[in-house]
Amino acid sequence: MSISLVHLFELLSTGDRGALARAITLVESTRPEDADPAEQLIAQALKARRNATVRIGITGIPGVGKSTLIDALGSAMIDRGHRVAVLAVDPSSSVSGGSILGDKTRMARLAANEKAFIRPTAAGGTLGGVARRTKEALLLCEAAGFDRVVVETVGIGQNEVSVDRMVDLNVLLTVAGTGDELQGIKRGIMESADLICVTKADGDGLGRSEQARRDLLTAIALLPPRANGTRPAVLLCSALEGAGVDALDRTIERMAEDMLRSGHLAARRSDQERFWMRQAVEDELLSSFRGDPHVGQRWHDVEELVAAGRMSPFLAARELVALFRKASGPPP
Amino acid sequence: MSISLVHLFELLSTGDRGALARAITLVESTRPEDADPAEQLIAQALKARRNATVRIGITGIPGVGKSTLIDALGSAMIDRGHRVAVLAVDPSSSVSGGSILGDKTRMARLAANEKAFIRPTAAGGTLGGVARRTKEALLLCEAAGFDRVVVETVGIGQNEVSVDRMVDLNVLLTVAGTGDELQGIKRGIMESADLICVTKADGDGLGRSEQARRDLLTAIALLPPRANGTRPAVLLCSALEGAGVDALDRTIERMAEDMLRSGHLAARRSDQERFWMRQAVEDELLSSFRGDPHVGQRWHDVEELVAAGRMSPFLAARELVALFRKASGPPP
Repeated sequence: MSISLVHLFELLSTGDRGALARAITLVESTRPEDADPAEQLIAQALKARRNATVRIGITGIPGVGKSTLIDALGSAMIDRGHRVAVLAVDPSSSVSGGSILGDKTRMARLAANEKAFIRPTAAGGTLGGVARRTKEALLLCEAAGFDRVVVETVGIGQNEVSVDRMVDLNVLLTVAGTGDELQGIKRGIMESADLICVTKADGDGLGRSEQARRDLLTAIALLPPRANGTRPAVLLCSALEGAGVDALDRTIERMAEDMLRSGHLAARRSDQERFWMRQAVEDELLSSFRGDPHVGQRWHDVEELVAAGRMSPFLAARELVALFRKASGPPP
Repeated sequence: MSISLVHLFELLSTGDRGALARAITLVESTRPEDADPAEQLIAQALKARRNATVRIGITGIPGVGKSTLIDALGSAMIDRGHRVAVLAVDPSSSVSGGSILGDKTRMARLAANEKAFIRPTAAGGTLGGVARRTKEALLLCEAAGFDRVVVETVGIGQNEVSVDRMVDLNVLLTVAGTGDELQGIKRGIMESADLICVTKADGDGLGRSEQARRDLLTAIALLPPRANGTRPAVLLCSALEGAGVDALDRTIERMAEDMLRSGHLAARRSDQERFWMRQAVEDELLSSFRGDPHVGQRWHDVEELVAAGRMSPFLAARELVALFRKASGPPP
């Protein structure tokens, strides 16, 4: 590592939030010259010994109250002595690091607390790209001593699948009174939830929220149980009145402790790492194939034959892959 | 080509159904020694000049009346001078060619007609595998002079996506009276339909079917239009009483003619071929990667490091792909 990189990592290790922000910017960078230093930072972060951390996904459609709840939940965690990082995957933004001011407004208490770190991750680019950036940012947060990392996503499209693959516990937020709380939750999202929280359970909404909780429990009973044999609990909470936030915090802690003790936490993280490795292999293979100049030359001609119905697409694929393999390898 | 292969193709070209069946068995075979002859047959089929053909997908959940409708529709097509092949993708069967008797019972009129050819394709194996087998069988049917090819699928799981990628027109069958006709149709399936047909519109079911048609038209109006700017028509039919089958036949013919004239048919087929080429490249790349002995040796060690959280899955992928490329290529 270069001296400046060593210095950056040392500073990051002391918990310096500015250094952490710079390190994340580096691993998020798409500039070729940043690839090597980014890789070294990640390798260093993996080597660094960390205390037990808990990675929590908070998923819910826009308007469900994710930021307000994270603000309250994160503050409760800090009150119990933790340091909290929030990585917000913002699908509406394609500018990396751009909406930091917006996030400061959204999570006012956390933003003002020096034991918190809030970072938006732009969802621009490929799904794999977002996931990778978020996953590596998560590692850097842990290396900087943040022992509770919250990954916030809207769970629309395919992001919810990815977040399930990088957190220890996935909390699904929903709100009563839209008339279709159950239909609004895609089956896949519900199946990946470890815990469901009905937000805005206050004032006029309390009765509806209790009904929503019963409906959710009925629906959950029809789903297969989670890997550890349990079904997700359903909690009510009101970030506005503060009700239920401590209960949510305690439930998360208890579940994380259970997972740690039973070995499910280690098993889940290992499975996740294997999953990302397989995904990354596919991405890497395809991008090196697409970037190969020999393939590029031949691709165009072959594709024309295929598109004209004069060559089998399967045969074309065989030919191109054989060409790629032949062109690879050391020069003779 | 070997003499027996040349002979097989010549026989197939005369429309011989036995030769067609043997040829399909060959391209469906997973035995390594069949790969080359199968490839030659397909190349030959692509070279053979064919009259204009129409490829029709018939999709619908079990019980909707697919076989009965195909029996009636196919017979109507034959009455107009066509030769009709039916490729039935049967997800419940993993035995190739196994349920031929079942299909003969299911489509009694077609099965007794020498201008028809019925062939089940087992859905066992990977999705890509099924799609490839069906797509190549389709080419062989066309080379054997079958100018109307029907691909029947249940449209459950991901098959509906594939069938949409290999037919010119996708007909979605639905039935009224289940109380949730619309919910039963996944959005993706409805979006890929060029034509929707409410089956069993007879007797007591007629009123319900008309209501279902109105509901479907309302739902369709909310969807984006198809590539050619139109929205799918909704027809009623009763294969039992024969009502609506001729109208369906005529609608399909008219749509196919419009597509041919406007150039949408050629464009759609080209797009489909390009799609299959990209898919096949991915499959081929991954399988040659997985089959590489150098990769196999290193994979295990690297995966252990990754699973233990000691190596970045992204770095591991980079290393393995670099190893694959180095190991490929001609021996020095």
